[in-house]
Amino acid sequence: MSSFGRRLRINIFGESHGPAIGVVIEGLPAGLVLDMELISDMLERRRPGTGRHVTRRSEEDVPEILSGILDGVATGMPLTCIIRNSDTKSSDYRNISHIPRPGHSDYTAFIKYNGFNDVRGGGAFSGRLTAPLAFAGAIAVSYLREKGIEIVSHLKSIGGIKDNSLNMMEFDKMQLESIRKNRLPVIESKVSDLAEEALNNARMNLDSLGSEIETVVYGLKAGIGEPGFNSLESTIAGICFGVPGVKGIEFGRGFELSGMKGSISNDEFYYEEGIVKTYKNDMGGILGGISNGMPIVFKVCMKPTSSISKTQRSVDLIKKENTELVIKGRHDPCIGIRAVPVIESCAALALMDCLLEG
Amino acid sequence: MSSFGRRLRINIFGESHGPAIGVVIEGLPAGLVLDMELISDMLERRRPGTGRHVTRRSEEDVPEILSGILDGVATGMPLTCIIRNSDTKSSDYRNISHIPRPGHSDYTAFIKYNGFNDVRGGGAFSGRLTAPLAFAGAIAVSYLREKGIEIVSHLKSIGGIKDNSLNMMEFDKMQLESIRKNRLPVIESKVSDLAEEALNNARMNLDSLGSEIETVVYGLKAGIGEPGFNSLESTIAGICFGVPGVKGIEFGRGFELSGMKGSISNDEFYYEEGIVKTYKNDMGGILGGISNGMPIVFKVCMKPTSSISKTQRSVDLIKKENTELVIKGRHDPCIGIRAVPVIESCAALALMDCLLEG
Amino acid sequence: MSSFGRRLRINIFGESHGPAIGVVIEGLPAGLVLDMELISDMLERRRPGTGRHVTRRSEEDVPEILSGILDGVATGMPLTCIIRNSDTKSSDYRNISHIPRPGHSDYTAFIKYNGFNDVRGGGAFSGRLTAPLAFAGAIAVSYLREKGIEIVSHLKSIGGIKDNSLNMMEFDKMQLESIRKNRLPVIESKVSDLAEEALNNARMNLDSLGSEIETVVYGLKAGIGEPGFNSLESTIAGICFGVPGVKGIEFGRGFELSGMKGSISNDEFYYEEGIVKTYKNDMGGILGGISNGMPIVFKVCMKPTSSISKTQRSVDLIKKENTELVIKGRHDPCIGIRAVPVIESCAALALMDCLLEG
Amino acid sequence: MSSFGRRLRINIFGESHGPAIGVVIEGLPAGLVLDMELISDMLERRRPGTGRHVTRRSEEDVPEILSGILDGVATGMPLTCIIRNSDTKSSDYRNISHIPRPGHSDYTAFIKYNGFNDVRGGGAFSGRLTAPLAFAGAIAVSYLREKGIEIVSHLKSIGGIKDNSLNMMEFDKMQLESIRKNRLPVIESKVSDLAEEALNNARMNLDSLGSEIETVVYGLKAGIGEPGFNSLESTIAGICFGVPGVKGIEFGRGFELSGMKGSISNDEFYYEEGIVKTYKNDMGGILGGISNGMPIVFKVCMKPTSSISKTQRSVDLIKKENTELVIKGRHDPCIGIRAVPVIESCAALALMDCLLEG
Repeated sequence: MSSFGRRLRINIFGESHGPAIGVVIEGLPAGLVLDMELISDMLERRRPGTGRHVTRRSEEDVPEILSGILDGVATGMPLTCIIRNSDTKSSDYRNISHIPRPGHSDYTAFIKYNGFNDVRGGGAFSGRLTAPLAFAGAIAVSYLREKGIEIVSHLKSIGGIKDNSLNMMEFDKMQLESIRKNRLPVIESKVSDLAEEALNNARMNLDSLGSEIETVVYGLKAGIGEPGFNSLESTIAGICFGVPGVKGIEFGRGFELSGMKGSISNDEFYYEEGIVKTYKNDMGGILGGISNGMPIVFKVCMKPTSSISKTQRSVDLIKKENTELVIKGRHDPCIGIRAVPVIESCAALALMDCLLEG
Repeated sequence: MSSFGRRLRINIFGESHGPAIGVVIEGLPAGLVLDMELISDMLERRRPGTGRHVTRRSEEDVPEILSGILDGVATGMPLTCIIRNSDTKSSDYRNISHIPRPGHSDYTAFIKYNGFNDVRGGGAFSGRLTAPLAFAGAIAVSYLREKGIEIVSHLKSIGGIKDNSLNMMEFDKMQLESIRKNRLPVIESKVSDLAEEALNNARMNLDSLGSEIETVVYGLKAGIGEPGFNSLESTIAGICFGVPGVKGIEFGRGFELSGMKGSISNDEFYYEEGIVKTYKNDMGGILGGISNGMPIVFKVCMKPTSSISKTQRSVDLIKKENTELVIKGRHDPCIGIRAVPVIESCAALALMDCLLEG
Repeated sequence: MSSFGRRLRINIFGESHGPAIGVVIEGLPAGLVLDMELISDMLERRRPGTGRHVTRRSEEDVPEILSGILDGVATGMPLTCIIRNSDTKSSDYRNISHIPRPGHSDYTAFIKYNGFNDVRGGGAFSGRLTAPLAFAGAIAVSYLREKGIEIVSHLKSIGGIKDNSLNMMEFDKMQLESIRKNRLPVIESKVSDLAEEALNNARMNLDSLGSEIETVVYGLKAGIGEPGFNSLESTIAGICFGVPGVKGIEFGRGFELSGMKGSISNDEFYYEEGIVKTYKNDMGGILGGISNGMPIVFKVCMKPTSSISKTQRSVDLIKKENTELVIKGRHDPCIGIRAVPVIESCAALALMDCLLEG
Repeated sequence: MSSFGRRLRINIFGESHGPAIGVVIEGLPAGLVLDMELISDMLERRRPGTGRHVTRRSEEDVPEILSGILDGVATGMPLTCIIRNSDTKSSDYRNISHIPRPGHSDYTAFIKYNGFNDVRGGGAFSGRLTAPLAFAGAIAVSYLREKGIEIVSHLKSIGGIKDNSLNMMEFDKMQLESIRKNRLPVIESKVSDLAEEALNNARMNLDSLGSEIETVVYGLKAGIGEPGFNSLESTIAGICFGVPGVKGIEFGRGFELSGMKGSISNDEFYYEEGIVKTYKNDMGGILGGISNGMPIVFKVCMKPTSSISKTQRSVDLIKKENTELVIKGRHDPCIGIRAVPVIESCAALALMDCLLEG
């Protein structure tokens, strides 16, 4: 199903070319003030057509709140927000409805839903559904900010071009400012330039690029999360893998740990002004599924945009024969760019839920 | 909490040095025959003290079934199985109860549970809790096998020494036989030898090694799983991150995808004897969270064993000052070895749950 | 929270005087055809202002479907439906926002939500929220009808005036036709007349009446439901108690059973044309939480409408002193009348969920 | 499934004549001290064979705690408790395994589980499973008592003989003492004598009696519970209907409300020493699903014991023909007697869960 969360329950609905997409958020504390500016900023960063390397479909993405808010403040009841779909050129997709696009869910959805799924624009599998996720995420970000918690995400790599790493030990405001200032959400302006070039090349070659998104959460106190299958890692991973295109996640040093020795990887403890800290943070701030007071660090990998304009081999599910297809329409050359605020949202929602659990 | 699953609900309990550990399994189909040999084999592969590179604590791990089984067949009611703890030298751990071991949950559990947690042997955070998980996993493996589904796991790397990859396209019985025959669960006997040497060195140096576990599920039909936050990736990841030591997971080519182009990473479709297949399997058999009929491929990384015998820096949580500690007791030089059947179990339980959901 | 269901998950949102109310329905089988006539009929029966003994607020209650339906058929994705609020005279309620109305949730919501709850018209506690519930219920009714299952509800009593009982042994089409034909949803036309008189008296006396709603489900096969805390009784009761005004529920003979002997209350079995039946149905078709193939029978009691126009004693939560209040606005003299299709909906949703669980 | 609860999760397992029954309790606050005396007292009150009008099967019901407790204090991890079965004369039941006992789950379980269910003594449907429920309930009772909350249950009626009502406005210690002192759990000693006579008659006539159990919770503050489908009524009802034999539940005046007028049934508010109270408590302390600070009042009806020694008509599910059966073995003439502490436990677990939710 399309829901997640235990205390803060998120239920996302809608299809790319249906009347509207939206979200119901259950469990918001009554009295929470909605930060509309933060919400707009989050949706703006995720929005296509903003002049950067994203599709030119000019979604307006104006959220309409239907319930749960009175005079800008949460009532404690389910908050429902919808975003109308518009400018949806579904004719672009009609001719390929029985010819599944490689890399997309067309084939698997066809099988699972006996062909009744809405195939237009990927239907409910569309990246468009991350708009209500970002809406909810913005609320979580503002809730966490009130508690002194700051989340920063950036493109750690794009098409193999690597950005600097975020500071794993403490919040570095200048890094955040660079990320927001650069034309692409990376720390280094040089990387932004190189990546833009790579994106232009990919577009010209009718191709697309993969990417990595690194996220660090600063200011989360120790003791948050659960052992076992509700670990911080399980919770964050479970949400992130609901974002189209995510195919991997690692915490702290992640896969690097597999080549390390315990004497190197263990984060030793010390006291600093009465607070327990670790000298380094290879575990990404999580031990036994629970926060240890150091920043939470994780990285996801995003596959290249599946929609490419090159001719691809596929099958015709009606005629039951091999065929070829060319995908028309407008597509981001790298879905990772717009996914940066989305992964930030996933982290915020996961941690707000864990904080509400106490 | 210590539970997971939607239709097949797994509830694991117990503490390393308490009276017993165990599991309640809800949702087993009535009439399912218990394959005790498969269960024994699974527990044996996970068991310490079996002459290989694992601790010498001689756990007997004899499961006692308390409910849900009549004459060897599932009644449809919750199956409860307990495994008594014995040979638990808790004095080894007593002296360090307020000095958290680096890499372990001692500190985070102390904060979360106000010091009331059972710290002996890691309490509920101990790898010992994976024994009931493997018990449940063995039942899922036998359920899947009845449906023609086979799961193979092996150590993809250990201390940086890399094994061959499993066949991502079709089941290779010889690979499975090699894995079972070698002294370590790897495909290549040469790798087994090299890794043993590395393990011996690590042990002599009072140190430990990280590892990667690769898992492939053969024979799962298309259309299994859900979109969004109950995707196959979310479900499998959520369970795997409940296994102590797992810090990353990737599906198909995983993080490699971030450096690839869409024209390379997309798995194109074709018909083979009326069945839709893909020419390669970089997506690991999952599109839009749903199986596409190709083998499910994923890899987890395991951090090095946190318990090492080298002197480490830590803190005394009572005296609130810096200190050092030396961990005594018996410890695997690489937790990944025994984790191989455990990750196999995670995959089996995740997929059985998804299959029961239909 | 505002959700229920396991396989068929219903999430209701909205506040009486907010922009809209609605529902997200997860778990609808792909391919299910929406019966818009049945939906209209269900909403019409629940709707106020239809000339009978219900409030004259002329809600239009036109459902707008935002997702999950393509060309009138379920896509398998969450179905979202909203109903705009209009004609909401919230000024009627403003002056009493800190003077809780007896019998209403005003006081308890004020405490729970620190006064941030939307008090206008009862906010999320309003009976208005049963409109989306009835929308969802209509879909379940049509799903069940396809499987030969018919649900009938009527007012078993109103202000102490008792209607006949529904046939507990088999579907009686004439009873259903009477219920639909009479001006009030009762079997006996005489009862309809008497009850109308009582309603008129209550209205003239600025008072309200209590009622009972009896529901019978015909055609459910044996073996549906679960033992224990997901019993058919638990499932149906859990949903019905979410309907404002329900204060009791009983299955089969219910409370009468407490004065009976086992030799009388036990429903003995026999074979009829190869099917196991019981000679009578005092258990209401449920044994051990599971259907036995006989009709499911249950009855709920509805308290009298809390909103009465008589002067009542209350408190001023701001001034912290005793006071009096007179409730203005339009109110049903008996909430039970409009609740008949709502309880029918509860039964339908509960059973559809249990059937999907298998 | 056999589980309930949101923050406090109860998972009950076992079969009447299997090796053991038990419970896993997730969500206990770390540091909670186990009151073993209260637990013993609760199990003793539920236990058969204690000289009163209950079966003579001498269950010892000694709970063995396997996890979650260290030195008598909750660790915060799942608490597991098992109770071994002994003195189980299963031969009593063998001869009727394909002849379902009227009133029991034998037939419905046979259908649902394809005959694989454990039919001995009712298997998982047995009232014996209420022992672990009472164990868990005792822990909840002690948790609530620490917060000044007291729960009292008694037999409101037995075989039609009515006891006095519990005080609906405030805790009356003398009522509780009477209930504990009398040979049957009723307030009036005269009622105890009359009911004993009725029980003896029922037993001599190979018959059984129905009953009602009334429960009042004193001291719960206002603002606990949720609106909608997680209302206090939904939560309490959902658990109570998991207890074998419960066929109805009502809150406050319950079904009486259906014959009342709103001007009578509404509980008007007033201030007493700064606290909002109601002049009477016909709503049973719940408005809009949330506690209003007055005592929580509810009543369940219990059907007569289904196992009676009279000859009854049934069917042979193998031969597919009508037949008769006589149930041998030991049976309570009224299951309501032992159910009193069980319903008390249900109330305690429901409210502890709601309190932990905040």
